Amino acid sequence: MTRTVVSSATKTHIIGFDQPFTIIGERINPTGRKKLAAEMKEYNFETVEKDTLAQVAAGAHMLDVNAGIPLADEPDILAKTIKLVQSLTDVPLCIDSSIVEALEAGLEAYEGRPLLNSVTGEEERLEVVLPLVKKYDCAVVGISNDETGISEDPDVRYEVAKNIVHHAADYGIKPEDIVIDPLVMPIGALGNAGVGALDLIRRLRTELKVNTTCGASNLSFGLPNRHGLNAAFLSMAVGAGMTTAIMNPLHEPELQAIWGADVVAGHDKDCAAWIRRFREPPAEGAEAQGARGGRGERRRRRA
Amino acid sequence: MTRTVVSSATKTHIIGFDQPFTIIGERINPTGRKKLAAEMKEYNFETVEKDTLAQVAAGAHMLDVNAGIPLADEPDILAKTIKLVQSLTDVPLCIDSSIVEALEAGLEAYEGRPLLNSVTGEEERLEVVLPLVKKYDCAVVGISNDETGISEDPDVRYEVAKNIVHHAADYGIKPEDIVIDPLVMPIGALGNAGVGALDLIRRLRTELKVNTTCGASNLSFGLPNRHGLNAAFLSMAVGAGMTTAIMNPLHEPELQAIWGADVVAGHDKDCAAWIRRFREPPAEGAEAQGARGGRGERRRRRA
Repeated sequence: MTRTVVSSATKTHIIGFDQPFTIIGERINPTGRKKLAAEMKEYNFETVEKDTLAQVAAGAHMLDVNAGIPLADEPDILAKTIKLVQSLTDVPLCIDSSIVEALEAGLEAYEGRPLLNSVTGEEERLEVVLPLVKKYDCAVVGISNDETGISEDPDVRYEVAKNIVHHAADYGIKPEDIVIDPLVMPIGALGNAGVGALDLIRRLRTELKVNTTCGASNLSFGLPNRHGLNAAFLSMAVGAGMTTAIMNPLHEPELQAIWGADVVAGHDKDCAAWIRRFREPPAEGAEAQGARGGRGERRRRRA
Repeated sequence: MTRTVVSSATKTHIIGFDQPFTIIGERINPTGRKKLAAEMKEYNFETVEKDTLAQVAAGAHMLDVNAGIPLADEPDILAKTIKLVQSLTDVPLCIDSSIVEALEAGLEAYEGRPLLNSVTGEEERLEVVLPLVKKYDCAVVGISNDETGISEDPDVRYEVAKNIVHHAADYGIKPEDIVIDPLVMPIGALGNAGVGALDLIRRLRTELKVNTTCGASNLSFGLPNRHGLNAAFLSMAVGAGMTTAIMNPLHEPELQAIWGADVVAGHDKDCAAWIRRFREPPAEGAEAQGARGGRGERRRRRA
């Protein structure tokens, strides 16, 4: 039963086959967010602070932190952002950068055992990121593309993932510390993107025995009602064995799809979390049963 | 590639592994609906008429018709209801009764090739219903319980389903004309009801190679936010290979879960149905792209 253990200074979280799905909040990322990028470049963390609190309140178990701003001192900004976020919340973080120096600065700043985001199957990348994973004893996201790019063939992406796991073993890194992103393609452009992703998730779980994650919203790129489509995909991905996703936890349809899938998959013991999230308080002066039947089901979220 | 062919006088519908999910509207059923029962008993089909039109407009591919009213002439009422419904819509019907005389009256009245709902694994029931299926050359729902009741063990329910298929073969009825209901249990009472149902659906598809259906809402019995939980289950059931459900097609969350799962499963070619259902019309005087981005995603349903 594969378990990836991450932590902050005071809180441990397990990503695992037998665990409720891990929601990793994606919001602290200046890519495509002009205002956030401008703020972070000036070491103004107002939006970062809001995004931290809002995502955790919405139910994120971890937060991804990225400081990829053109022409800025990314290592320094990432380190400072991580320190700030860790001062605001105890959920464990993903340290997210495509620049190795930024990853290392983030690791230096971090308290606990983070998830490093990410390494790919590219030889050059493996050789610089895996030593960091070993040195800092953290977990790492492995993305299934390599020098040849992203293959449209799920079997090739499986082989890339396998290659990452094997390379990691050479550094003494265990498969349970690698969370594979099988790369979900836009289904509007590639009709078998859904089936391909689900098959790949299933194989990664049963054959390679690793945890899996993805940027789920990529599937619906270019299509209308993206939340509805993402929700269906997420439920199905949980059914296929996916254990975490990097996503916007402020979107209710996707959250419900994941929480519901946790119930169906038997990861929400006695449906306790579902009931806590959705049960309606009895109306004053009304019989509980009658009140419920008459007023339908309303939501009350408890943090 | 299993295909169950049903029809009305003028329209053929295929329930199949490679087809979009078949939604069977459940509303025309007086069980638990006092007003409808009272009306139907008096041969007043006002509500039946409304339910017929509303369910088809909402996207039902077939309608279930049941006339199970205590102390009423069920065979006669069922036959007349079927004639009426067939005069209002061309979608194929399920003829639904626990009384064999009513099933036969329904079959006599029906124009086309219906889905008979249902036979169980009970010896006595098999011996009276299967000859009707053969005589009228229709398809049939096989429910996986027998004389011993409904087993909580999915393996036992699989064996009951297998037994139904074998018995049917003795009458010359092909597996493709049998749609198995694996029986979904309330997950609030039975924690492994979800995993059990999904595994069973997968086995029925891969090993027994039959279409499957269920009353999906049974899963969420007794729990809050039933629509949210049903939706997650339905997406996962499509992922596991379920091809049809008897359900209320007026519930949007469940519909979106199914339509989205059809896209992910590759049953909605070029996402054409999804795009048709959800794309937003360009605003007058605005550039289409800008209008879409600015106003978010709204729904426009087309029959």
